[in-house]
Amino acid sequence: MTTDHETIASLAEIRTLLSKLPSKDEAAEQAAVARNAILTKPAGALADLEDLAIFMAAWQGKDRPSVNHPRTAVFAGNHGVTALGVSAYPAEVTAQMVLNFQSGGAAVNQLVKDLDGDLMVYEMDLSSPTNDFTQVPAMGDEECAQAMAYGMMSVETGVDLLILGEMGIGNTTSAAAIYHALYGGKAEDWTGPGTGVVGDAFANKVKVVSDGVAKHKGEAADGLDVLMRLGGREIAAIAGAILAARMARVPVILDGYICCAAAACLHAWAPESIDHCLAGHLSVEGAHSEVLKRMDKKPILQLGMRLGEGSGATLAGQIVRSAVNLHNGMATFEDAGVSESVH
Amino acid sequence: MTTDHETIASLAEIRTLLSKLPSKDEAAEQAAVARNAILTKPAGALADLEDLAIFMAAWQGKDRPSVNHPRTAVFAGNHGVTALGVSAYPAEVTAQMVLNFQSGGAAVNQLVKDLDGDLMVYEMDLSSPTNDFTQVPAMGDEECAQAMAYGMMSVETGVDLLILGEMGIGNTTSAAAIYHALYGGKAEDWTGPGTGVVGDAFANKVKVVSDGVAKHKGEAADGLDVLMRLGGREIAAIAGAILAARMARVPVILDGYICCAAAACLHAWAPESIDHCLAGHLSVEGAHSEVLKRMDKKPILQLGMRLGEGSGATLAGQIVRSAVNLHNGMATFEDAGVSESVH
Repeated sequence: MTTDHETIASLAEIRTLLSKLPSKDEAAEQAAVARNAILTKPAGALADLEDLAIFMAAWQGKDRPSVNHPRTAVFAGNHGVTALGVSAYPAEVTAQMVLNFQSGGAAVNQLVKDLDGDLMVYEMDLSSPTNDFTQVPAMGDEECAQAMAYGMMSVETGVDLLILGEMGIGNTTSAAAIYHALYGGKAEDWTGPGTGVVGDAFANKVKVVSDGVAKHKGEAADGLDVLMRLGGREIAAIAGAILAARMARVPVILDGYICCAAAACLHAWAPESIDHCLAGHLSVEGAHSEVLKRMDKKPILQLGMRLGEGSGATLAGQIVRSAVNLHNGMATFEDAGVSESVH
Repeated sequence: MTTDHETIASLAEIRTLLSKLPSKDEAAEQAAVARNAILTKPAGALADLEDLAIFMAAWQGKDRPSVNHPRTAVFAGNHGVTALGVSAYPAEVTAQMVLNFQSGGAAVNQLVKDLDGDLMVYEMDLSSPTNDFTQVPAMGDEECAQAMAYGMMSVETGVDLLILGEMGIGNTTSAAAIYHALYGGKAEDWTGPGTGVVGDAFANKVKVVSDGVAKHKGEAADGLDVLMRLGGREIAAIAGAILAARMARVPVILDGYICCAAAACLHAWAPESIDHCLAGHLSVEGAHSEVLKRMDKKPILQLGMRLGEGSGATLAGQIVRSAVNLHNGMATFEDAGVSESVH
């Protein structure tokens, strides 16, 4: 860890981090580009996989990138707006699913095994939901900063790929409100069915998003303010984890609609702050494709998923790992005695 | 193996196989659908991964599908049309790449490792290219049938997922001719740059495709005739492997443009003969998206790849394995004590 996160007690301290964010390592990037050009394949034939390997080299700062210790960090939080009936599931399900993660029965557990990764699950004061953001800010400044600092803990020494996910009944509502606040338009443009909200319940969800954004309109100076007022602890923690990963030269894979709301708050605050992040997949929740366009991210997978838990991002981790293994393991034309193009 | 492939000496014998092709196992499919419905996730939230697990159950004929022994079978062949200058690489590269596969330096080697699979490489008389199809049929009836029988050998007992790939300088030309013969249109609709053919060389490649199809026009009664006249040994072997896999209840993942040309010949002959096949990825070679539409296949990955070797299909194998592991490993709502939807 190169971020002194334990001392962070205000968003002002987070804002000072911006000036310290490292850039990509251009020497490592160029070395990876050069190696890529001599591997035994027609130029560009591995396409996105080549770009992923070069991305990993640039952001890890290593000519030969690695995926030896991928970590999936899942943050769980509860939301005050759940009392307004925005989810198809009761709020207790957040804690029940944390138990499911701990006993190995959730989707993300299976996907972490397939990646040979580790899974860390962070419960964030589940018995005290955030405030109802249609009435007051979801979190206070210090509360939001501390949640971000908590998220930073997920970036431990040795982790070379950070995969971010969340669990929180009600958090698609929070994500929709964040996007509506950041990107404008109408509340319904950004509100999806979440776990399966339809009909009158969906209309109510749209109203909660609309009311929340209207309540705080004009009071949010930047993306971190939006995060504090409309986000949740797990979303703030993801934002913190993204920043800590950047400081520690650990590339990140973002999951779907909610995870990207954390990234969108950082992106709105300082676009370059998420340059080390990959979009794991295109979720069918809400307007995720529009969100990715605004953040200029191309999703690795498009499988119609909308589960959260870091599931899409962890699955995408296998593609990133393969991209890195191709880059490191393939022979060069010279090594293999293969003739190069005659044109 | 349930196909008595060693005795196959003519395409007529292949044609009799059609009446014996097993259908999917509907009981296993329904059992998988039922289990999928009670796993700890909102209904449909894993989307394509749920469909893949159910597909595997249906075609393996097992309530609990498996990916314990995935095999990537790569068939290598040489093509008479290479003498007409259709590739950016010399014909010797086919044999050089076979050596690269054998020494572990090619892309597919790295991807097979990531899947914990095995790789079988089948050289098909590389020193004797097929005939120049602009003059005579690429293969004779017996030669094509024997190549198909050879491909059938790849389906050995224990293999539970067959991933098909090819290597053959000149074979994008053969694939383009197959599609043009099967689907009509103009030669340029189906001809791609292959390993990087541009300008005059590309115009020449289009002419070879056009001339080849014109030469055999009206003489090909079905897809197997097209395969014999315009295909190559590696493409015929892939077609044979697809049929053998069907007989042995082994689902198949198809690779890109050339691999799908084998499937397209079977599909033209008997559409249901490839119902047990998945499209591993969308290649950017030629008109692959149009080909997949005609075969009604949705690609698992869309990463801009165009390498062949079974690379895209082997990478997609990791997604299929994860789909199966999710299906088998996730807890049910009841097991995990998680509340179900309240709506």
